[in-house]
Amino acid sequence: MTTASEYAGLQSVIWVGTHLDLLDQRLLPEEVLYLPLETSESVWDAIKHLAVRGAPAIGIAAAYGVVLGSRHAEGSVEAWLQTVNETADYLATSRPTAVNLFWALDRMKARAAQLAAEGLSLEGCKQALLDDAIAIQSEDEETCRLIGVHALELFEDGMGVLTHCNAGGLATAKYGTALAPFYLAQERGIALKVFADETRPVLQGARLTAFELQQAGVDVTLICDNMAGMVMSKGWINAVIVGTDRVAANGDVANKIGTYSVAVLAKAHGIPFYVACPLSTIDLNTPSGDLIPIEERHAEEITEGFGKRTAPQGVKVFNPAFDVTPNEYVTAIITEKGIVRPPFNVNLKKLFE
Amino acid sequence: MTTASEYAGLQSVIWVGTHLDLLDQRLLPEEVLYLPLETSESVWDAIKHLAVRGAPAIGIAAAYGVVLGSRHAEGSVEAWLQTVNETADYLATSRPTAVNLFWALDRMKARAAQLAAEGLSLEGCKQALLDDAIAIQSEDEETCRLIGVHALELFEDGMGVLTHCNAGGLATAKYGTALAPFYLAQERGIALKVFADETRPVLQGARLTAFELQQAGVDVTLICDNMAGMVMSKGWINAVIVGTDRVAANGDVANKIGTYSVAVLAKAHGIPFYVACPLSTIDLNTPSGDLIPIEERHAEEITEGFGKRTAPQGVKVFNPAFDVTPNEYVTAIITEKGIVRPPFNVNLKKLFE
Repeated sequence: MTTASEYAGLQSVIWVGTHLDLLDQRLLPEEVLYLPLETSESVWDAIKHLAVRGAPAIGIAAAYGVVLGSRHAEGSVEAWLQTVNETADYLATSRPTAVNLFWALDRMKARAAQLAAEGLSLEGCKQALLDDAIAIQSEDEETCRLIGVHALELFEDGMGVLTHCNAGGLATAKYGTALAPFYLAQERGIALKVFADETRPVLQGARLTAFELQQAGVDVTLICDNMAGMVMSKGWINAVIVGTDRVAANGDVANKIGTYSVAVLAKAHGIPFYVACPLSTIDLNTPSGDLIPIEERHAEEITEGFGKRTAPQGVKVFNPAFDVTPNEYVTAIITEKGIVRPPFNVNLKKLFE
Repeated sequence: MTTASEYAGLQSVIWVGTHLDLLDQRLLPEEVLYLPLETSESVWDAIKHLAVRGAPAIGIAAAYGVVLGSRHAEGSVEAWLQTVNETADYLATSRPTAVNLFWALDRMKARAAQLAAEGLSLEGCKQALLDDAIAIQSEDEETCRLIGVHALELFEDGMGVLTHCNAGGLATAKYGTALAPFYLAQERGIALKVFADETRPVLQGARLTAFELQQAGVDVTLICDNMAGMVMSKGWINAVIVGTDRVAANGDVANKIGTYSVAVLAKAHGIPFYVACPLSTIDLNTPSGDLIPIEERHAEEITEGFGKRTAPQGVKVFNPAFDVTPNEYVTAIITEKGIVRPPFNVNLKKLFE
């Protein structure tokens, strides 16, 4: 665990005792606004419409969403348990790709069933389920710190590291996954030169990664996605590190659209490509990446994403939110339990033994 | 030459007898506005600030800029010739990468010197120099049509073709270079499925390529730059074709930032990568691409290009306007004289013999 003085970043999800304060990441970096969420419907909306994003942060928000959706259940523990399950199933429909969402919801359902079986009172069940949501959040913080500790073994003072999208403190409880080593390097006086892809169409790299690293005093340079190849060819990049929304059992990695292009470019330039994630993002039930559903989003994200139309009316658009990077492009996967290298179909399984 | 009925596109540069009407491409696709330019200074501004862009269109505009800057020269043919040379040297400072700019200015200077040597009157010289600017424009139209004819040999009905930036009718007199085969395919009933990279930061692909192809009824799908790898991996792309701002003697290709990434991705997927350009873009005086100056532009193009700030204040930004694709990634270069294949250091030279 860390003290507030060590981590200067904004927290994306805050339970304030009576409701959830959720940082509206769509408004960053121009405005820091917390949405007070009191219902599971408002949590569903926040996930669906990207007020909260980042696989771990979505999982945390969803866990609190289950609490919010079931806290007014009355009558019996059985009725409460049914409401918990219905709320979790409802929240699961908000986004299809991030496995942490389903992981957190399954954990809440299992915990609720366990509490009911233990014969706690209705109020006792409600309090204990809230405690578990809080535990998911604080465990994520510790998980991210450990990911950072392990990832930092891969980096040396003076290295240039490229990242895509935002797998930072804003995407998690704190520290982030892919960005965690940068925060730890900063604490330890190790100078890394970070390049952040802006990450069209939603610009999480420009709006979030550049923002949170700049706030923390990390040396960060913003580039457009299409500049990644050029900065690699200049020899400025010694490693790539990204987060992920789901890792399949064979090590295929689903992550923000553009990750696959970066991975292919890294391989062509002989640059290692690292993926940072908690164990909860690894989905052994999905054998390979081609089975991961890829969300397609509205054309308007591309054609008028920031309030100004930048493409002709009615133009055909393809807007996948994610892509899948096949395992042969992945040098290593960094988890809270350490660095996993190929063969991933063998070594990922070992993490869970 | 073509009739108006065959080519429905907007013309970017129009000489109206007394001045230049220049389509302000920064306002597309929302607004079609022609800037009336009466001085060489206004032409310099228009080139510098991207009202006109595209290597051939810049060359055409610059040629008229020389006319505008010298038409009020008085006294002697010698004084006029000096003004022509000064105006051309001044216009050459507007942008550093596009070789057509220098090619057109050199042609105007050489033509002016020739006219002066021929003993024409001052008014005769001025008229003949204007005629040569008009000739540069109409020759470019025919050149582009021929590039399209040759490039179309490489494509078959039903193919998917990716392009980056805008090397279209808007970038040239008419037809474009990379987009010329799409217009000719359309005329001949050959169905091609075009994918247009939006091309950050200035979004020429979204604002211009998608716009002009959509207007012409070509099947075009807009994607973000970082989606190119994914659409290639899906098997949707059978070829890539782009324009260029300068080809070195060894076949290295300078083009809009992001072209290099596309070329590396194409190679990794076994997809041919074609470059379309007029001979005036081939610079035998530049032995290799690493000698081509690469313009860096303002951070604001990236941080507030959508009319709204989308990155934190004061963030470090790297914003190269172009990159260089080494010749080993280039399958063929298509010119008005035909298709050139490797070895480029031998075969490009032959074009000029």
